[in-house]
Amino acid sequence: MPNGAQTLVEGLVDAGVDVCFANPGTSEMHFVAALDDVPGLRGVLCLFEGVATGAADGYGRMAGKPASTLLHLGPGLANGLANLHNARRAGTPVVNVVGDHALHHKRLDAPLESDIGSLARTVSGWTRRTYRATDLASDAAEAVAAAYGPPGSVATLLVPADVSWTEAGKSGRPPVRTGPRPGAVSAAAVEEAAGMLRSTEPAALLLGGAATHGRGLRAAARIAAATGARLLCETFPARLERGAGLPTVGRLAYREADASAQLAGTRLLLLAGAAEPVTFFAYPGQNGRIVPDGCRVLSAATGTEDVTAALEALAELVKSDVTPVPQAPLRPERPTGALTGESAAAAIGALLPEHAVVVDEANTSGIWLPAATAGAPPHDWLTLTGGAIGQGLPAAVGAALAAPDRPVLALEADGSAMYTLQALWTMAREQLDVTVVLFDNRAYSVLNLELQSVGATAAGPRANDLLDLSRPDLDFVALARGMGVPAERAVTAEQFTVLLDRALEEPGPCLVECVVPPLA
Amino acid sequence: MPNGAQTLVEGLVDAGVDVCFANPGTSEMHFVAALDDVPGLRGVLCLFEGVATGAADGYGRMAGKPASTLLHLGPGLANGLANLHNARRAGTPVVNVVGDHALHHKRLDAPLESDIGSLARTVSGWTRRTYRATDLASDAAEAVAAAYGPPGSVATLLVPADVSWTEAGKSGRPPVRTGPRPGAVSAAAVEEAAGMLRSTEPAALLLGGAATHGRGLRAAARIAAATGARLLCETFPARLERGAGLPTVGRLAYREADASAQLAGTRLLLLAGAAEPVTFFAYPGQNGRIVPDGCRVLSAATGTEDVTAALEALAELVKSDVTPVPQAPLRPERPTGALTGESAAAAIGALLPEHAVVVDEANTSGIWLPAATAGAPPHDWLTLTGGAIGQGLPAAVGAALAAPDRPVLALEADGSAMYTLQALWTMAREQLDVTVVLFDNRAYSVLNLELQSVGATAAGPRANDLLDLSRPDLDFVALARGMGVPAERAVTAEQFTVLLDRALEEPGPCLVECVVPPLA
Repeated sequence: MPNGAQTLVEGLVDAGVDVCFANPGTSEMHFVAALDDVPGLRGVLCLFEGVATGAADGYGRMAGKPASTLLHLGPGLANGLANLHNARRAGTPVVNVVGDHALHHKRLDAPLESDIGSLARTVSGWTRRTYRATDLASDAAEAVAAAYGPPGSVATLLVPADVSWTEAGKSGRPPVRTGPRPGAVSAAAVEEAAGMLRSTEPAALLLGGAATHGRGLRAAARIAAATGARLLCETFPARLERGAGLPTVGRLAYREADASAQLAGTRLLLLAGAAEPVTFFAYPGQNGRIVPDGCRVLSAATGTEDVTAALEALAELVKSDVTPVPQAPLRPERPTGALTGESAAAAIGALLPEHAVVVDEANTSGIWLPAATAGAPPHDWLTLTGGAIGQGLPAAVGAALAAPDRPVLALEADGSAMYTLQALWTMAREQLDVTVVLFDNRAYSVLNLELQSVGATAAGPRANDLLDLSRPDLDFVALARGMGVPAERAVTAEQFTVLLDRALEEPGPCLVECVVPPLA
Repeated sequence: MPNGAQTLVEGLVDAGVDVCFANPGTSEMHFVAALDDVPGLRGVLCLFEGVATGAADGYGRMAGKPASTLLHLGPGLANGLANLHNARRAGTPVVNVVGDHALHHKRLDAPLESDIGSLARTVSGWTRRTYRATDLASDAAEAVAAAYGPPGSVATLLVPADVSWTEAGKSGRPPVRTGPRPGAVSAAAVEEAAGMLRSTEPAALLLGGAATHGRGLRAAARIAAATGARLLCETFPARLERGAGLPTVGRLAYREADASAQLAGTRLLLLAGAAEPVTFFAYPGQNGRIVPDGCRVLSAATGTEDVTAALEALAELVKSDVTPVPQAPLRPERPTGALTGESAAAAIGALLPEHAVVVDEANTSGIWLPAATAGAPPHDWLTLTGGAIGQGLPAAVGAALAAPDRPVLALEADGSAMYTLQALWTMAREQLDVTVVLFDNRAYSVLNLELQSVGATAAGPRANDLLDLSRPDLDFVALARGMGVPAERAVTAEQFTVLLDRALEEPGPCLVECVVPPLA
C-alpha cells in the first residue's frame, strides 16, 4: 500500500504538475523518496528556498500551469516568502508543499516548531494542513485547482511528517477537477465597457495579468484599434508579449510624475487584469493616486472572471474595419564606445533572439531596455511584479524549464542578484540555456534616487555608505564560476556585444558581467 | 525639530543600542539619513536580510544586549525570519526596525503591501506598529526593554514611512527603563530543587540559555560538585563557555538513541534555562521524548525568572567542601595524512586561540569537534539553536562586531553556507577578524542519515540527487574571493593545518575550504 507521500506525488502528477523545485529537510524525506516510486515529477534541487519559489513563479508565468515547491517547515517557507509575494502579485499559479513535524510531535515545541500557517497565509490564496494520509491525494488536487483559480494564486499544503509516512488507502473524497476553468465573463460589465469606450475619449486600456500576452493581448489591440483607446499595461507586468509584429503596449511609468503625464487628460481608464494604478511608494505631499481627476475607472473583468474571454467579447462588440498596426521590426545598431546602461540596451536590442524569454530585474540600469528592444523579434518580458528583489535569477531558472526550446535572457542588477545568487548553481546543474547579463553598477542605485524622492536630501557619508556596493567590489565572474557557470566581464560596449553574442549562441548557462556607471 | 526617524535612532542609542545591521529600501530612507544626524548607531550593510538578522543574533549572544536590524517591508522581514527563528530559540535580544508604507498608502494595496504584522508575530515576543512620530522614541525604548526580557526575545517595531518623515515633538510618555532587569528568583523553586538534589540520585542538571556561560555556569558547576549531579547542556546551546580551566559540560546528543543512553537511569533532571529535552524531529515508532520513565523533571527558574540568580542561590543552599574539577588543558597533535572531519577537528583543537568565539554550523562534518576542542584554551561555542540553517556565517559577523578583541572561528557546512553566503562580503567590508572553515563534503550529508532514520530506506537515484551537492562542485575559494575574502583550499590534513594556522594569525577575514568526505 502506498504511503501518504507517494499518494501526494501521484495527486500532483495526476493534476498535471511535472516539476518540483525542492530544498528538502528531514520532514520531507518520504516525499523525496517517493520521487523514485512515482514517475512524472521532476525534482530540481535549489540551494535556497527563495530560488525554489522564484523558479516556480517563472515556471508558472511561462507554462500557464503550476510548478510545485518542496520546502522544509516554517523557516524553509519563510526563506521562500519574498518570491511567493512576487508570485502572488503576478497571479502565478504555484503549489507549495511544506513539510511539518509529525502531528504528535508538534506539542513538544521542538527547535524547528513554528507557526507555519500564519506564514503561509500571508502569500497564499489557499492554505491547508492535511491530517490524514488518505486525504493527501485529493488535497493535492484541490491545491492545484486553487492555484489555477481564477485568479491564479499561491496554494500551500502543509504536510506533517507522519501523514507522509503513514499508509494511505483509497480516499473517500470525490475526485477534484483541476486545470484552468472555462472562463466566466460578466456580459453586463463587457457591455458597459463597450458603451463607455464608444462615448468617452480619450480612453485608455490598462492591461495586466493574462491580458498582456496571447489572445487577451490581441483582443485588446483590436479594441484599441476600433475605439481609438490607447494601450497601456501595468508598470510591472507578469508576462508581456512584445516585439516586431505584435501590438505595441506602453508600460505605465514607475515615477509618479511620469505616470501622471502618461494618463493626463484621459477620461476613461478600462482595467483589464490590472488594478487601478497607484504609486509604488508613498512620498511626502503626494496621495499615491495616478489616475487624473475626472477620469472614470472601469473594470472589464473582476479577479475571478476570465479577462481573456472578457476582452474577446468586448472586441467583438466594438469591432470595426480598423485593424491594429503592429510594431514594426527595428533593431538598434551594435553599440561602440563606453559601456553604459544605454549602450548595453542597444546591444541587447541588436542581438535579442527570436522567441526569447526576457527576465528583467535590471532596475535602474535597465531604463533604456524597453525602447531598445521594442522592435526586436517577438519575445516575452517578465518583470518584478511585487517589488521583492531577488526574483530575476530564480525566475529565469523556472522560465527555462517551462520553455526548454526558447532562449532565456536574465537581465539582473547587482544588488538584486546578491539576494538569490544560488540560482546560478541550479542553472549549471540543469544545464539551462540562460544568458545572464549582470549589470554591475556597484550601488543600490535606485535608493540614491529614492533618498531624494522622499525628501531625505541631506544624506551624509553614513547614509551613502549603506547604498554603496563598491567596498569591496563584487566579482561576479568569480562568483558565477564558483557555482559552475561560465562567465566573462565586459567594460566596453564592443566587449559586451561580442560576449553577449557568444553567450546567446552557446547552449547552457553563461554570465556576462556588464560594468556600468550608476544612474546619475 | 527632529523627524520621527531621528527620534527613533536617538531612542535606540539612548537605550544602549549601538549597531544596526541594515538592508534598507525606500521606506527606510529617513532612518538611513538619520544615521548621519544622530551619532552613536553604526550602520552595517548586509546584502541580504538573513545576514542582518543572523548577525544580530550573533551580536546579541556575545554582547548580552540587542543589536538593531533595519529591514524593508514584509519581504525584507520575511527574508530575515529564518535567523530570527534561531534568535528566538536562543533567547537572544534583538530589535527589528521594519519600514512600512505610509499609513495613508496602505489601503492602496501597492505592490509591496503585505501582512507584516503576521510575519513579525511568528518570531517576536513583542510587536508594535507606531502610528505617531511623537511615539517613536518611547516605542524604541519599549522595544529594547522587551528584547532584554527576561526572557531575551525578538522585538519588532513596524515603522510607517510617514511616521518616520513627520516632525516629532517631545513624547508625552514617561521614559522607559531599559537594560537587563534585576533577576527575579522563586525561592520556593530553589528550595525544592535543593531538597530534591539532596534526596535523589542519580541526578543531572540540564543547562541552557544564560546557564551555559559566565556566573550561571560556574554556579552550576558548584552545585554539581556539591551534590554529585551530572552537568549536561542542551544539544544546541546559544553560547557555551568551555575549555581548559572551565567546567566540563556534556552536550545532550542529537540522536534519540544516544541522548536516551546519556540520560538512562537518571532519576532527577533539573532544568536551568533549558526546556525538557525532546527529539529534534519525529521518527516512526518514537514518541519524541528522551527523559527516561520515572525520572522527575524540575525547573530551577521559569522563563521570566533569572536563571543565573537562581543557580547562585541554589549553589549557596547546597554548598559543600567539594570543589568543581575544571577541565584539564589538552590539545590534540597536529594531524597528518588524509583530510577528514576527524583530522580537521584535530587541527582546530591544536590551534584554537585563547578566547576564541567559535560559531559552529559544521553539522555532520563537525561531530569530532567537541572532543577535539574540550581541553583547548577557554572559548565560547555558539550553535544553531533553531535548526534553520544559514545561521553560522551571519552569526560570525555579529559575534565579531560584539567582541572585536576576540578571534572568531566560523565552522561552516557547505549546504548551510550557501543559504547566507553574502555574509562574507560584510566580513570583508568591515574587515572582521573571522576565520571561516568551510567543510565541503559536497552533500546534504545530514539528510542521507535522516533519510535512513525516517525509514525511507529505498532511496533511488532521484532521491539521492536531491541530497547531492557535487553536480557541479561548488568552488568556495572562488566564491569567497568574489566577495573580497581571501581564501585557500586544503585537501590534506597538513595543508589544512598550515592554512588554518596562517588564517588565525592574520587579521581580517579569511576562508579555508576544507574538502572532506561525507559522513558514511
